[in-house]
Amino acid sequence: MAEDQWPDVSGRIQNGIHSMPIRVYYEDTDAGGIVYHARYVVFCERARSDCLRLLGIHQSALGGVHFVVRRMTCDFLKSARLDDLLEVETRFLGLGGARVEIGQQVMLNGNTCFRADVTVAVVDGRGRPMRLPETLAETFRGILKSRNLT
Amino acid sequence: MAEDQWPDVSGRIQNGIHSMPIRVYYEDTDAGGIVYHARYVVFCERARSDCLRLLGIHQSALGGVHFVVRRMTCDFLKSARLDDLLEVETRFLGLGGARVEIGQQVMLNGNTCFRADVTVAVVDGRGRPMRLPETLAETFRGILKSRNLT
Amino acid sequence: MAEDQWPDVSGRIQNGIHSMPIRVYYEDTDAGGIVYHARYVVFCERARSDCLRLLGIHQSALGGVHFVVRRMTCDFLKSARLDDLLEVETRFLGLGGARVEIGQQVMLNGNTCFRADVTVAVVDGRGRPMRLPETLAETFRGILKSRNLT
Amino acid sequence: MAEDQWPDVSGRIQNGIHSMPIRVYYEDTDAGGIVYHARYVVFCERARSDCLRLLGIHQSALGGVHFVVRRMTCDFLKSARLDDLLEVETRFLGLGGARVEIGQQVMLNGNTCFRADVTVAVVDGRGRPMRLPETLAETFRGILKSRNLT
Repeated sequence: MAEDQWPDVSGRIQNGIHSMPIRVYYEDTDAGGIVYHARYVVFCERARSDCLRLLGIHQSALGGVHFVVRRMTCDFLKSARLDDLLEVETRFLGLGGARVEIGQQVMLNGNTCFRADVTVAVVDGRGRPMRLPETLAETFRGILKSRNLT
Repeated sequence: MAEDQWPDVSGRIQNGIHSMPIRVYYEDTDAGGIVYHARYVVFCERARSDCLRLLGIHQSALGGVHFVVRRMTCDFLKSARLDDLLEVETRFLGLGGARVEIGQQVMLNGNTCFRADVTVAVVDGRGRPMRLPETLAETFRGILKSRNLT
Repeated sequence: MAEDQWPDVSGRIQNGIHSMPIRVYYEDTDAGGIVYHARYVVFCERARSDCLRLLGIHQSALGGVHFVVRRMTCDFLKSARLDDLLEVETRFLGLGGARVEIGQQVMLNGNTCFRADVTVAVVDGRGRPMRLPETLAETFRGILKSRNLT
Repeated sequence: MAEDQWPDVSGRIQNGIHSMPIRVYYEDTDAGGIVYHARYVVFCERARSDCLRLLGIHQSALGGVHFVVRRMTCDFLKSARLDDLLEVETRFLGLGGARVEIGQQVMLNGNTCFRADVTVAVVDGRGRPMRLPETLAETFRGILKSRNLT
């Protein structure tokens, strides 16, 4: 399996915080010489996907349950550039009946380039809001708690 | 000139509101069958660029003045799909000394799919904040006023 | 309908050649100051989609018939830059039983920036090759013939 | 340094072949449920960048020397899907005075999804062809030779 060859390919969860590396390639930059702003939004989605993956939640196998971004507040704080190796940190901030609150940061050498608060809604196959299934809620509560203890 | 062949290629400004069409292509969709969320952020940037273009402000010819997105609050309200023809509406909401506040909506058949409040900062070639040059400020005030009159 | 407001939003077919404008936005450029090479591949897909649309073929309503790119030979000839208004030209070159040969060019002020020969395969919902339905084949033969007459 | 935290983040070179993992995220897929075709072109660029990086060649520090893709022949052989972990293999095939020939494959579980032959040209800051500097040529010859020996 390819997964065995590349141990940290989905990042790591430590103390309730998921972190993963993201390299800045030409595709991520623009003619201003910096990372194109919408790419940070993409980087955060990659990180949420890999965080779920490490928690054992596979989006392509969730059946009727879908996560969709409902709201996102984005602060663009510092520019990253070609070849930079960024780290995206993802924290679960809270759980509602049909939504999950997540905080994300894109870091470069200890500085925050981008910060977002993300509200993810739980919807069914037709896009209608549904309650977060209890098994998923428990997984999220577990990671929330592990962070609070630190 | 190609511009003469395609009259409305940059959209139109009417009553102080810029609107432009954006078609949803395969590149904009994802495996969920809907428009990938970060694409709305891209669509809004296209619209801001074309709005500036119609106002006679050419980003590639602005010399030392750069516009960068500093903050963006995004609401994802309704999903768009392949082949949909969206319309992006852009409104100037206010002017600060070194920033511009802009409101944007992505519409589909009269419904709002996506809404964003965008704070754009004015920076110099090194990314440091600078005052909005008076000629640009006047252009923005002009479009702000034309909308208030309606 | 939004389509009525933006008459040429899908380009035009003249003498068997489809052409459409594509503006270069920040999203299309990279830190080299030019259009990122893979964007030309995307531009060509947009053009094929709109060409089909003008021929009355709606990809999202094709039922069990899917077009997938099987082979693409790409020549990157000249760089385009931010704010350039490109034109993509699409020509049908030939029809096989289960595939369509298409030639595409991305033009800037009369010069060719990018040229591609594209082999599109016809597949069913499971990705297996299938014969091009006769109604589609007739449509493609029609546009092929209209070009040969010129 | 972030690099120390994520040892294989740029992939590995073994027997003259560079290989690196690429996860398929939502951003890479389209409404057809598969990886959007142009994304393979992007994946190959990421792999070339990381291969150069492991060879000690940093694109953002190359001074007046730029690598641009001149020609690319692409075969789309098998579809990848959301959550797949792909591996991109990159091989140097040959060296000309002002260009480098590279072969790339995107693999999934031992099958080839995508294959490309890529001609990369060496150009100066104005986009004019220039001879490959001897130090770079030697690095490329080194990796070419190490593969031939196996």
